[in-house]
Amino acid sequence: MADREKVEKLYDSLRTFNEKRGYLLNPDADFAKALVNSLVINEDRYGYQVCPCRLASGSRAEDLDIICPCDYRDADIIQYGACYCGLYVSRDIASGKVELKPIPERRPNKEMRLKMAEEKSKIKTQNSNPGSKLPVWRCTVCGYLCAREDAPEICPICGVAHDRFERFM
Amino acid sequence: MADREKVEKLYDSLRTFNEKRGYLLNPDADFAKALVNSLVINEDRYGYQVCPCRLASGSRAEDLDIICPCDYRDADIIQYGACYCGLYVSRDIASGKVELKPIPERRPNKEMRLKMAEEKSKIKTQNSNPGSKLPVWRCTVCGYLCAREDAPEICPICGVAHDRFERFM
Amino acid sequence: MADREKVEKLYDSLRTFNEKRGYLLNPDADFAKALVNSLVINEDRYGYQVCPCRLASGSRAEDLDIICPCDYRDADIIQYGACYCGLYVSRDIASGKVELKPIPERRPNKEMRLKMAEEKSKIKTQNSNPGSKLPVWRCTVCGYLCAREDAPEICPICGVAHDRFERFM
Repeated sequence: MADREKVEKLYDSLRTFNEKRGYLLNPDADFAKALVNSLVINEDRYGYQVCPCRLASGSRAEDLDIICPCDYRDADIIQYGACYCGLYVSRDIASGKVELKPIPERRPNKEMRLKMAEEKSKIKTQNSNPGSKLPVWRCTVCGYLCAREDAPEICPICGVAHDRFERFM
Repeated sequence: MADREKVEKLYDSLRTFNEKRGYLLNPDADFAKALVNSLVINEDRYGYQVCPCRLASGSRAEDLDIICPCDYRDADIIQYGACYCGLYVSRDIASGKVELKPIPERRPNKEMRLKMAEEKSKIKTQNSNPGSKLPVWRCTVCGYLCAREDAPEICPICGVAHDRFERFM
Repeated sequence: MADREKVEKLYDSLRTFNEKRGYLLNPDADFAKALVNSLVINEDRYGYQVCPCRLASGSRAEDLDIICPCDYRDADIIQYGACYCGLYVSRDIASGKVELKPIPERRPNKEMRLKMAEEKSKIKTQNSNPGSKLPVWRCTVCGYLCAREDAPEICPICGVAHDRFERFM
């Protein structure tokens, strides 16, 4: 178990930082702190806060997509109401309106990831656009733009709800 | 009249939340609280905080553009110094440098809105780009991008003024 | 020297505002306050907080790129670990991991600036895209998009590190 004080400190800072930005931690504080405890352990072991529910390789470059918050959090919150671990949850889960169910793994397998990384590095040297197949969403209130599978749960700039976003590109 | 405590709570949270993001409430607190009072009443009546100065239909989908903050707030602040209701104001109005005048209605009429909604839903199924006729603005300091009629009053990311934005697309 | 109270107030507000957004002031508070003192003096003299380490013209339009934070801050923080003045620093400089060295001037000379301004105003009237040669970066966690020479040190929306950004356009 990690140092209790470190865990409390990280838990508090994650909660404050994320709530301001429209992300909510699991309201079951004991559950959330158990995950944060693992983040602190992983930070000590690997040098970065890698996801407590996945197998880390120990190489930051290889684990980049599963450093918490992982690349899959936001899509999982929109689709399933929580990230893979259940550390971050949607408003409906947080308020108890909807029950939290197991989240399937969205991370591609290693072979697929290597292929994707190869493609990305090709694209980088060719100076063209990797992620550009992703749709771009626009907040109809403030004009905020983001590129992701689906629009965020709330606008991180002006705070309006998911249904105030429109497809922009 | 709505529950006084609810009104004070919403007023305080709107003020804090929005000031951090570069939006200012009307400095006339009594005036602002009268509007917030109507937002609380509308929340109870319709389930969402629809604009107190417009006629709501009661269908969230139809009223989406006038849920506060409405889709027209930011353009009105830039052009007239305040939103249609006068709940949100520009820096010049807030500081008393400029006097608040009546704001004309920017919302298209119902016929026009239905036509626009139809077009949007067509575009959604065709996977192409609805709002993309809007210009994209870039903060020359931090690179923030947003798509709206005109650049914001201040950059929500780094806080610089309107004239530090440039047309990007 | 400027009014001490004004300097302390601006220093505090810059520190709080910027830390929330992922920007750090120089940890040497005396050094930082000397620069903030000059910002207060410049505000009184010119009406805007122009960079204390550069020669201002006194015309806001001409000095726009060097109003603090200047247009060059973010690129300098990424490349050299600090802005030209040393008021804003990278995480590595702030933590003492890396030593602060003199920052070369990135601002184009006057002739070049006039040429660029001319091009921009041409582009504005033609309604096409000035800054669009800049790459667009995407945060792989939250989808935040920004157009700048290099991705930011941390994502201003979700807080993840520089290496979680990918080239988007």
